[in-house]
Amino acid sequence: MGPLRITGARITPVAFRDPPLLNTVGVHQPYALRAIIQLDTDAGLVGLGETYADTRHLARLRAAADAITGLDVFALNMIRAAIADTLRGDTAAVGTAGMITSASAVDQVLSPFEVACLDVQGRALGRPVSDLLGGAVRDAVPFSAYLFYKWAAHPGAEPDAFGAALDPDGIVAQARRIVDEYGFTAVKLKGGVFAPEEEMAAIEALAAAFPGMPLRLDPNAAWTPQTSVKVASGLAGILEYLEDPTPGLDGMAEVAAQAPMPLATNMCVVAFDELAPAVAKSSVRVVLSDHHYWGGLQRSRLLAGICETFGLGLSMHSNSHLGISLAAMVHLAAATPNLTYACDTHWPWKSEDVVAPGVLSFVDGSVPVPTTPGLGVDIDDDALAALHEQYLRCGIRDRDDTGYMRSIDPSFQTASPRW
Amino acid sequence: MGPLRITGARITPVAFRDPPLLNTVGVHQPYALRAIIQLDTDAGLVGLGETYADTRHLARLRAAADAITGLDVFALNMIRAAIADTLRGDTAAVGTAGMITSASAVDQVLSPFEVACLDVQGRALGRPVSDLLGGAVRDAVPFSAYLFYKWAAHPGAEPDAFGAALDPDGIVAQARRIVDEYGFTAVKLKGGVFAPEEEMAAIEALAAAFPGMPLRLDPNAAWTPQTSVKVASGLAGILEYLEDPTPGLDGMAEVAAQAPMPLATNMCVVAFDELAPAVAKSSVRVVLSDHHYWGGLQRSRLLAGICETFGLGLSMHSNSHLGISLAAMVHLAAATPNLTYACDTHWPWKSEDVVAPGVLSFVDGSVPVPTTPGLGVDIDDDALAALHEQYLRCGIRDRDDTGYMRSIDPSFQTASPRW
Repeated sequence: MGPLRITGARITPVAFRDPPLLNTVGVHQPYALRAIIQLDTDAGLVGLGETYADTRHLARLRAAADAITGLDVFALNMIRAAIADTLRGDTAAVGTAGMITSASAVDQVLSPFEVACLDVQGRALGRPVSDLLGGAVRDAVPFSAYLFYKWAAHPGAEPDAFGAALDPDGIVAQARRIVDEYGFTAVKLKGGVFAPEEEMAAIEALAAAFPGMPLRLDPNAAWTPQTSVKVASGLAGILEYLEDPTPGLDGMAEVAAQAPMPLATNMCVVAFDELAPAVAKSSVRVVLSDHHYWGGLQRSRLLAGICETFGLGLSMHSNSHLGISLAAMVHLAAATPNLTYACDTHWPWKSEDVVAPGVLSFVDGSVPVPTTPGLGVDIDDDALAALHEQYLRCGIRDRDDTGYMRSIDPSFQTASPRW
Repeated sequence: MGPLRITGARITPVAFRDPPLLNTVGVHQPYALRAIIQLDTDAGLVGLGETYADTRHLARLRAAADAITGLDVFALNMIRAAIADTLRGDTAAVGTAGMITSASAVDQVLSPFEVACLDVQGRALGRPVSDLLGGAVRDAVPFSAYLFYKWAAHPGAEPDAFGAALDPDGIVAQARRIVDEYGFTAVKLKGGVFAPEEEMAAIEALAAAFPGMPLRLDPNAAWTPQTSVKVASGLAGILEYLEDPTPGLDGMAEVAAQAPMPLATNMCVVAFDELAPAVAKSSVRVVLSDHHYWGGLQRSRLLAGICETFGLGLSMHSNSHLGISLAAMVHLAAATPNLTYACDTHWPWKSEDVVAPGVLSFVDGSVPVPTTPGLGVDIDDDALAALHEQYLRCGIRDRDDTGYMRSIDPSFQTASPRW
């Protein structure tokens, strides 16, 4: 195989309909944004990547695409260095509604290009991306049912198929629906929306409705350490892990020392420079990886190796995403022996995509790992054009759960911790 | 590309002439041993690996070869798992004269097979192994001049070309010869042989003879923490780093807290399970990697990532080795951005090899990175046969620097620390 040089990247922002999912900083806007990367090479092979599409991120992606044009798709070290050079001094994390704030901009921007490079490599070799990550150790990757408190509809719109979920009964009904449809074998509730007692009641209701089902609660740092310890004690023996109860490495360490279950995070350890202090402080026992801000699949493997070396568990975080990201998550998880928790995914909440259907499916809560070359997914050109049109039309240019909530409830205030 | 399944491995122990190099546990035997792996695949491609050849290791290699036959060369996760299964309960490290005792047997056995798999991958893709490790970030890899106290000859033999080096003048003369021939830009002295004062004098003589040359001293844990601190203080501003002055993570931490230069190790951090305690204790500031016991090239990249993440420097260790190992070291080092120290190599001390000449050379102290497919080196069948004959003839079956020294000086005793 001769050079496989990058000749450019087509970066297409898209918007897809998103239900009014509630969290501690507000509510999901009517459309979620993603940027689709089509990485072109001189061999004619095209690699796919998917990432955030906030205004600032799009500008960074375009600059990065220019910076890596001419490099070989195997030159991942040099690609990262070129992107770091391009971004120097422009370091704020984007795309996560202000909940993942200390991620590395370099790794966020690198991620979709690295995935696209691996996709090209795999297509060139006739090998699935999992083979480029050490090889799959499982044929299918288990995911969790990701439950949200939600309204029945965005203001002014018709109710969506899921309806409202604003109390324990609503959450159990939502869980039943999603578990029945997908077969998930673990359940996560996004909390931080209502008072801790109400969310504890929802978890207890889930435990009663799904005996033995691993359960997780994620209030996105909405609680003080004191509140966190109280909730943790109250849910002893019920939660598989408690995710980001309180802000910061010190607060998490304080809770971790008293909580009966492991603490997990995708807020206080979201970049490589946070690992050493987190280990030193014993802040968490489980890290939720996410290749979108950990710098792609190879660097997520590094994170996995660090977790194994330092005795940390490994799970996987998700933002609203489309099929390219799911494929990447599945290849990564399949090739990561110590990823022993079911991964998060927002998949059930979306009804549109840019990839041609038929490759990705859920069987008993798991996604079979694609075995065709590269990521195994292909763009549906019409769908990409339609979701790009939707992006142009919808007017949303940055994820802003808080601003959207305030447009509905002007009295809404964020606070971390809130309780 | 279809399956590239392993159909078996030819494992050939070889012996090559080795000068009487002194260290704190004894002296190098007249022949150094290596095992050469030729990994066969159903596509007819053959991958090369090189490792220790001690009796116990050879038995493990043969069991491992059987265990991985039938697996694909991209299935590195499953290959490691199969080897771990095979070795369960048989965990002692081998091959390093008792100086690297806590390495992982699984990673030692995995290493040559992983390198051979990458060699096959690269040959199949038409890509150098460095491309499978993220791509080279440098065209040539700098090495250091590795100096040894030595006798003029093995007992009963003719003096070798280097002659004796048993005092500062001898060491400076040896350095001059090796630096002149290879162009090395850093110098390391293997110590632990004479009293610390004599070895300090040798370092001071090197500093005077080679102004500005980075210098390292490695007594292989021959000193107490008190002696180590005294030597470290005496060589302030002269040593680039001080390597393994004293045994154990606690002793090293004690010295590290007082030494003016970084402490480096290839004795107290030689396996992944030693990294967390080393970080917690601040025992070292530089880790010398070595793919022969860190589980191959991919896991050495993991080590590199861990070092970067936890603020540790990275250098590279060497035992006596042949050209397959040098090629692997060069590809790894070229693709490791944070490997900022010149690597160790025993290369100047050997006069025989199993690889066809012409690929590996030293230019201004650095080895240009091969750009041909795979490792870039090929077996010279006649040379391999000759060195295997030499193995059969020489009678040495295990590295035993101490036993050999005692055969010459029955009063020789090991002690760590000795001074």
